[in-house]
Amino acid sequence: MLSKNVVKDIQSLALKKHRDESGLFLAEGPKLVEELWNLIPTQVEQVYATPSWAAGKNGVTLIDDHDIEKISALNTPNQVVAVVRKMTAKLPAADGFTIYLDRIQDPGNLGTIIRIADWFGVNDIVCSTGCADVYNPKTVQSTMASIARVNIYNDSADNWLQSQSAPIYAATLQGENLYTSPKAEKGILLIGNESKGIRPEFLGKATRLVTIPRRGGAESLNASVATGIILSHLLP
Amino acid sequence: MLSKNVVKDIQSLALKKHRDESGLFLAEGPKLVEELWNLIPTQVEQVYATPSWAAGKNGVTLIDDHDIEKISALNTPNQVVAVVRKMTAKLPAADGFTIYLDRIQDPGNLGTIIRIADWFGVNDIVCSTGCADVYNPKTVQSTMASIARVNIYNDSADNWLQSQSAPIYAATLQGENLYTSPKAEKGILLIGNESKGIRPEFLGKATRLVTIPRRGGAESLNASVATGIILSHLLP
Repeated sequence: MLSKNVVKDIQSLALKKHRDESGLFLAEGPKLVEELWNLIPTQVEQVYATPSWAAGKNGVTLIDDHDIEKISALNTPNQVVAVVRKMTAKLPAADGFTIYLDRIQDPGNLGTIIRIADWFGVNDIVCSTGCADVYNPKTVQSTMASIARVNIYNDSADNWLQSQSAPIYAATLQGENLYTSPKAEKGILLIGNESKGIRPEFLGKATRLVTIPRRGGAESLNASVATGIILSHLLP
Repeated sequence: MLSKNVVKDIQSLALKKHRDESGLFLAEGPKLVEELWNLIPTQVEQVYATPSWAAGKNGVTLIDDHDIEKISALNTPNQVVAVVRKMTAKLPAADGFTIYLDRIQDPGNLGTIIRIADWFGVNDIVCSTGCADVYNPKTVQSTMASIARVNIYNDSADNWLQSQSAPIYAATLQGENLYTSPKAEKGILLIGNESKGIRPEFLGKATRLVTIPRRGGAESLNASVATGIILSHLLP
C-alpha cells in the first residue's frame, strides 16, 4: 500500500500548478507507459503498476487496484501509472514545417493534434497562450507517446508567430480551396480555437487562408480532424 | 425545483438501457439544443434551462444551476438540458456513399465521425455490433447536431455489409496509397476499431484497402481523424 504522502504527491500532478512546479507529469496505461519507457527511459522517474502488468519488470512499484484508482487522473485507470519528467522544449527549426495552435482548449484535441503531427513528420508545434496544457493527463493520453517525439514550444509563444518569415497557412471557413492550393514543404499551419477560430492579429499574418470544401450540412469540423485533413493535402 | 421523480427519469437517460426503453436521449448546451430545436422541433420533448438561457423562450422549464448539475450527464453542465426523441433509422440508400463502422468504441470518436460525415455530405452511417451507442451523451455532444442530419443505422448491421455489392474501401495500415487511389462517388468506407482495426470477415469483403501515407513516427492515427482524411481524398 502506498503511503498517504506518496499518494498525495502523485495526485497533485493532475493539476497544472503542481506539474509546473515539479517539472513532472503523469502517463497511464500499458501501451503508453511502455512506449515512453522505451523512448525516454531516463525521464521515467517512477512506475506504479498492478501485478498483472508489473510481472518481470525491473524498477516497478507494485500496487493494488485500489491504489491505482487513487493515483490515476483518468476516468478509467488501467494497470499502470508513471511519473515522467517533462520534455525540454526548444524553438522550432526555421526550415521545417510547424503547426501553430491559437488557444486550442480541449486537451483531447491538443493531444490528437500532437499525434497527427507525429504521423505526418511535423516535428514542431507551438502553442499560444490560452491553449490546454500539453501535460494535462487527457492530452498526454491522446498523444499515444507522440508527446516524446514532437517538440512542443509554448514559452511566450504569442510573439513567436509575429516574428516568422515562413509562409503561414491559416485554416479558415472562408479561404481558398485546400485541394487546389499548392503543396508546401516548409511553413506554418495556423489552427484556431474550437469555437472562436484564429484571433485577428494572427490571421493578419497569414500568407494563405485555406478551406476544406464542404459538401454537406455541418457548420464546421473538429479542430484536430481539420488539422489532419489539411496536412494530408498541404504536405508534399 | 424539480421533483425527485423527474430528476430520476432524466438521469436514467445517461444509461443505454433506459434510452432504449424510452426511445429518448439527452442533448445539452445552448448551441446543440438550439440547433436540434430548429432541425427536429417535434422530437424535442422537454427543455430544462437556467434563466440566463431560457429568457423569452416558450416551453422551457426554468431550473437553477443546482438542478442542471443534477440532471446533466456531462462533466461540465452548460445552462440547458433537453430530452429528445431518437431519430428513426432506415437502411442506407444503395446508390450513395456510406460509412460502415466496425466496433468504434469511443463515444467521442463516434460523434466526431457523424459530424465529419455531415460535413462531407455522406448521408448514411452503419454501425456494427460493438460500436458505442449513438445516443450516448458524449456521442451526441460531439456530433454538434449532425446527429439529426445523418441517417445512422445499427439494427443487425453485421449482416448488412455482407449483402452489399457497392465497392468497399477499407482503411488499413497496409493498403494502397490513398492519395493516388481513384475517387469514388458511391461506395462504402469501412473504418475499424481503435486498437483492433477491422475484423477479418469484413476486411475480406473489401474491394480496395487504402492507407494514409505516413511520414513520421506515430504508429497510427485516431479513427475519426483517419475518416476525415480519407473522405477528403476519396470523394470527388
